[in-house]
Amino acid sequence: MRTRVTDMFGIELPIFAFSHCRDVVAAVSRAGGMGVLGALYFTPEELEMELKWIDDHVDGRPYGVDVVMPASYEGADFAAEELVGRLQSMIPDGHRAFVEDLLSRHGVPPLSSDADPGRVLLGWTDATARPQVEVALRHPIALLANALGPPPADVVDLAHARGVKVAALASTPRHALKQVEVGVDVVVAQGTEAGGHTGEISTMVLIPQVVDAVDVPVLAAGGIGNGRQMAAGMALGAEGVWTGSLWLTVEEADTPEMAKQRILAATSRDTVRSRSWTGKPARLLRNEWTEAWESEESPGTLPMPLQFMLVSDALRRIGRSDVSELATFPAGQVIGVTNQVRSTKDVVFGLVEEYAEALERLGRITGD
Amino acid sequence: MRTRVTDMFGIELPIFAFSHCRDVVAAVSRAGGMGVLGALYFTPEELEMELKWIDDHVDGRPYGVDVVMPASYEGADFAAEELVGRLQSMIPDGHRAFVEDLLSRHGVPPLSSDADPGRVLLGWTDATARPQVEVALRHPIALLANALGPPPADVVDLAHARGVKVAALASTPRHALKQVEVGVDVVVAQGTEAGGHTGEISTMVLIPQVVDAVDVPVLAAGGIGNGRQMAAGMALGAEGVWTGSLWLTVEEADTPEMAKQRILAATSRDTVRSRSWTGKPARLLRNEWTEAWESEESPGTLPMPLQFMLVSDALRRIGRSDVSELATFPAGQVIGVTNQVRSTKDVVFGLVEEYAEALERLGRITGD
Repeated sequence: MRTRVTDMFGIELPIFAFSHCRDVVAAVSRAGGMGVLGALYFTPEELEMELKWIDDHVDGRPYGVDVVMPASYEGADFAAEELVGRLQSMIPDGHRAFVEDLLSRHGVPPLSSDADPGRVLLGWTDATARPQVEVALRHPIALLANALGPPPADVVDLAHARGVKVAALASTPRHALKQVEVGVDVVVAQGTEAGGHTGEISTMVLIPQVVDAVDVPVLAAGGIGNGRQMAAGMALGAEGVWTGSLWLTVEEADTPEMAKQRILAATSRDTVRSRSWTGKPARLLRNEWTEAWESEESPGTLPMPLQFMLVSDALRRIGRSDVSELATFPAGQVIGVTNQVRSTKDVVFGLVEEYAEALERLGRITGD
Repeated sequence: MRTRVTDMFGIELPIFAFSHCRDVVAAVSRAGGMGVLGALYFTPEELEMELKWIDDHVDGRPYGVDVVMPASYEGADFAAEELVGRLQSMIPDGHRAFVEDLLSRHGVPPLSSDADPGRVLLGWTDATARPQVEVALRHPIALLANALGPPPADVVDLAHARGVKVAALASTPRHALKQVEVGVDVVVAQGTEAGGHTGEISTMVLIPQVVDAVDVPVLAAGGIGNGRQMAAGMALGAEGVWTGSLWLTVEEADTPEMAKQRILAATSRDTVRSRSWTGKPARLLRNEWTEAWESEESPGTLPMPLQFMLVSDALRRIGRSDVSELATFPAGQVIGVTNQVRSTKDVVFGLVEEYAEALERLGRITGD
């Protein structure tokens, strides 16, 4: 397959795979696509180790890194050294009590001594994401992607100076135009059905509008889990596809076993767009956590990054407990399509094979 | 183009066009697709006149009729003669006061003497839709479609006895299976981006699941407004497309001028899934009407058919006023793509032309 995107990166398949798991990233790149490591959960030191591992296992194939530099968030004008403290003081006691009460009611044990204040912000802010960018640019990455709107112009310039292409996720044509203005090389147009932070417009409706709005190549994201969906994304005008939820259940994924089983069993109705994770709307597995934040007792969610600061310890407590009904995580509607564990390589090749079959079938319909 | 659907109906193009406007229905069928008249707003007498007109203007081409027989609604066990009275008594005074207050605040004049109790139920119930079915089956229709779930089995049998095929809209694979069980010939799998009553799963995610679940042909609905979207729907495995919002702004459409202008100017973010029209979730143009029902003052919506009974006079009052900020109506996200008035025939031919271009482009990508 050949598009501007395969030419840009020297890859065989215009398949981009977002994953927090280095094994998946390396396996997709080795299979001819492009793995993109989500840096969010890693400290700069950890990210350094992950990228070193990928460098050693990717057989010289290109790969990318995805960071989160939101265009707007609370505390954007605070000095870095006082950022966490000032933000913590902005979280109302009533919200803390709601979270504590929710966990008590479900019998989630408290964390022992290992609350980790260094992780309450993650890479949700410019201040915490920039060190990740610096680490990433010391590695031979081919792509730097930003998950929440246009990256800062100086970060784009820095990447370009190192020969690294820049991508950004857009959920409206207007977002896409802003991204191109700051110099983004590839727009990832992401429909509402996608997992994680997402807008309201569906992939089917969004992609042609973004393709018509910008001159750079567009990747279709949201709802791409099989080869027919890949063919549909390309038919809409995209020059490649950006996938995510698909990789949560592959053999190589380090997804916790409980989560893997829930994804395999889930239908496409088992996700919900919710602010309960980060304060911005993100599609998550629907469960008693997301329902609680929609209930009458809910104090409402806080703006980014306060909501995640409020809930980060709670999510870690839940993750270490066996209270599965509260364990939520980003997941797209496409989890209704993934119902077996396969190797990353098999999934990549399966996409391509089904893509080819879909095109053959289209040819038969028109008699070509 | 040739699929099981074009063979089934003897049509040249697997393009189905839902419209409440007879001119659009006849024009689509004459252009080689299949127009489907939405019967909802018509009394049986009016429907008879509309279908007679179509018979005279469709040049012998096949066309269809769409009715609404919801699988579940309040009052399903009430006798027909007491249905309206008993349902009216179930509407709380607080709800009536909320609607009256909303209209007063926006300066909507009261209806003069022409409140029309015969229309408060429309075709939302089995009792009110059956007479429409009887009228429809007296005409040479090729298709009877049901908009809210599986039609009653005896209606399916009645249609089949007259040689009329039956379609039903599904928003989950489970719905589709139920429809096939009662004998439906074609499943219209409709994504959340569609206008009118709609589910949560996007077209991109839904279509392959429905195609895999049933043996009958599937039409892709939701977000189909141009030829690339049609190609995407077919790539997902559909054997045709079902379109709706696309026809609100064609030359022949009898859409009120104010609504036409708002649709032409709207973006894909200007719709919302709301229960404020009928009590079941339907995608509508987002405005002060839909916002009011989401506000803190809202008494909440009532179940079908009570909500429409509550608001039907209000919607007619708004429609006759110049208070445009309250004028809501069903519309899909695809209204963000429609931005010029064209003839129905031009839209049909444009779909086919762009469909062919999309396939050519896909061929170039794989080097075929």
